[in-house]
Amino acid sequence: MTEDTAKPSRRTSIDRRLALAAGAATLAAPALLAAATPALAVTPVQMPAQGPGFYRTKVGDITVTAVHDGFALRPLEGFVRNAPLGDVQEAMKKAFLPTTAFQNTFTALVVQTGGKIVLIDTGNGNTGAPTSGTWMQNFRAAGFAPEMVDQIIISHFHGDHINGLRFKDGTSAFTKAEISVPAPEWDFWMSDERMNQAPDAARGGFQNARRVFQPVAAQVKRFAPGAEVAPGITSFAAHGHTPGHTIFGISSGNARLMFVADITNHPALFVRNPDWAVIFDQDADMARQTRRRVLDMAASERTQLAFYHAPFPATGFIAKEGNGYEFVPVQWTQWP
Amino acid sequence: MTEDTAKPSRRTSIDRRLALAAGAATLAAPALLAAATPALAVTPVQMPAQGPGFYRTKVGDITVTAVHDGFALRPLEGFVRNAPLGDVQEAMKKAFLPTTAFQNTFTALVVQTGGKIVLIDTGNGNTGAPTSGTWMQNFRAAGFAPEMVDQIIISHFHGDHINGLRFKDGTSAFTKAEISVPAPEWDFWMSDERMNQAPDAARGGFQNARRVFQPVAAQVKRFAPGAEVAPGITSFAAHGHTPGHTIFGISSGNARLMFVADITNHPALFVRNPDWAVIFDQDADMARQTRRRVLDMAASERTQLAFYHAPFPATGFIAKEGNGYEFVPVQWTQWP
Repeated sequence: MTEDTAKPSRRTSIDRRLALAAGAATLAAPALLAAATPALAVTPVQMPAQGPGFYRTKVGDITVTAVHDGFALRPLEGFVRNAPLGDVQEAMKKAFLPTTAFQNTFTALVVQTGGKIVLIDTGNGNTGAPTSGTWMQNFRAAGFAPEMVDQIIISHFHGDHINGLRFKDGTSAFTKAEISVPAPEWDFWMSDERMNQAPDAARGGFQNARRVFQPVAAQVKRFAPGAEVAPGITSFAAHGHTPGHTIFGISSGNARLMFVADITNHPALFVRNPDWAVIFDQDADMARQTRRRVLDMAASERTQLAFYHAPFPATGFIAKEGNGYEFVPVQWTQWP
Repeated sequence: MTEDTAKPSRRTSIDRRLALAAGAATLAAPALLAAATPALAVTPVQMPAQGPGFYRTKVGDITVTAVHDGFALRPLEGFVRNAPLGDVQEAMKKAFLPTTAFQNTFTALVVQTGGKIVLIDTGNGNTGAPTSGTWMQNFRAAGFAPEMVDQIIISHFHGDHINGLRFKDGTSAFTKAEISVPAPEWDFWMSDERMNQAPDAARGGFQNARRVFQPVAAQVKRFAPGAEVAPGITSFAAHGHTPGHTIFGISSGNARLMFVADITNHPALFVRNPDWAVIFDQDADMARQTRRRVLDMAASERTQLAFYHAPFPATGFIAKEGNGYEFVPVQWTQWP
């Protein structure tokens, strides 16, 4: 089978599976309570829509699949810049999480919108911690293949978000996809002047951005935050974590899901304590203001969020709680 | 392959998978942070320990697999006996859950302890809502088979807990398993006097208990609450929801998990509001006292709980919160 014929047939198969799964989900309508058909007893068994490392959510007509990329173990010591270790450990203890090192998880999105398959961020590829790098396996288990990807949208240029684009040996993971990146992020990381000004310890990030993007630099599309970057996917400036850090609203009809990337690291720390600064925040004060603005919006509008570093499946809601917020994960459901 | 030869080989395969998975989990030791071996990058991909409808947890040397049996859609109206619908809807809204009908989920346990495979409760079998009955599929996906089950322990005799024992056509689902039930539960439901005293609307439960247990009545082991019912599994009286409702502590070394069965229905309602009575509580006041006692113990001892009706994977911790409690689900992890 050539790639050209493989692509539509794979996609048709997914569409059929998703259509069936969506059919099961209409059970949630109370009118069907008394009239469920026997056929439904079989459908879930034949067509599991979820997997251990992927989780589908419907956003109106759009299907969003959260794809897990495993985790890196992170020591808590030194992880929060502006809070004593004891306070950080207390926050972890309150969330019944470990107090020495914790699993910093990675979860990127696959968005099926307007007939296209669009990735938002790509995971660690084969360059991260040995407990990460499960994205490709989980992506395939969800019924996708790299050659099916039409477009890849990047939130920011930290390695755990872009390294899935290019393997360690230099080959490209997604040969047919258009790559869309925030213009201010590109301008910062691809600037030789910025790189030369950076302290030695910070130079790796600049070099890695070159490793990933330089071979395809002429083809990379740079968008201004605020632009609609794919059908139903709108970008929003959320600078601070990095100079061009960008988040994305995914909308269809009245339904909406907001991918907030690294607006926070682990919710038990930074949703609860939005003034805390993770060591990866490049401009801690701007990141704090952005975090409060986005979390406040999510709480008052009851918008469902998808995080990059929340426990898998990394999606839920935000409630106000004292001077901070609480992350309320969605109820896992077998059919989206 | 005969059943006799199938059993040890299947079990060996699971043990090997679980042993490998446990190996990956030792990464959580900070000492290994800098010394992770390349082999580990492959292990997770080859050996996913989790599935969309099953979730493994290690309790010391014991492996506990939560197996999902889907859900029944429940209208909220009339669901809580002693609270106005508006208050119930407010509690659901606070948890970002639907306010007309919700997914009442079912999750039973498979416990691998002392060389035995032990079930705690069995799900709806093929008698429940069309969106339930996924237990057998998920159980098999986790690497088990019905003929591998050595013992089945029952928390109480409501249909969603016992109907997995016997198919609609009367055949037994687990041909080789010893069945252990709480003596007070047996005495209540199998009493003809009680059945005859019951109002017509309540008679179905008595008849269903007979359908399930009568064909094997002579072999059913009845234990007094407080007894150790399997290696590392101790029963505790938790009466009220039903006259003999029983919960189970699963212990190995210092590790402990408590299966609390129907001590609450959905945590968003009854953990938050422990004085609320679900319509299924047969003695609402006794159930309330039991619920408060168990939740209070779990909060002060920080014991991990496994619920039957919490969102899958239905396991987490209890924190005190105002006059009630908060359910804090575990962080999902790819390897137990």
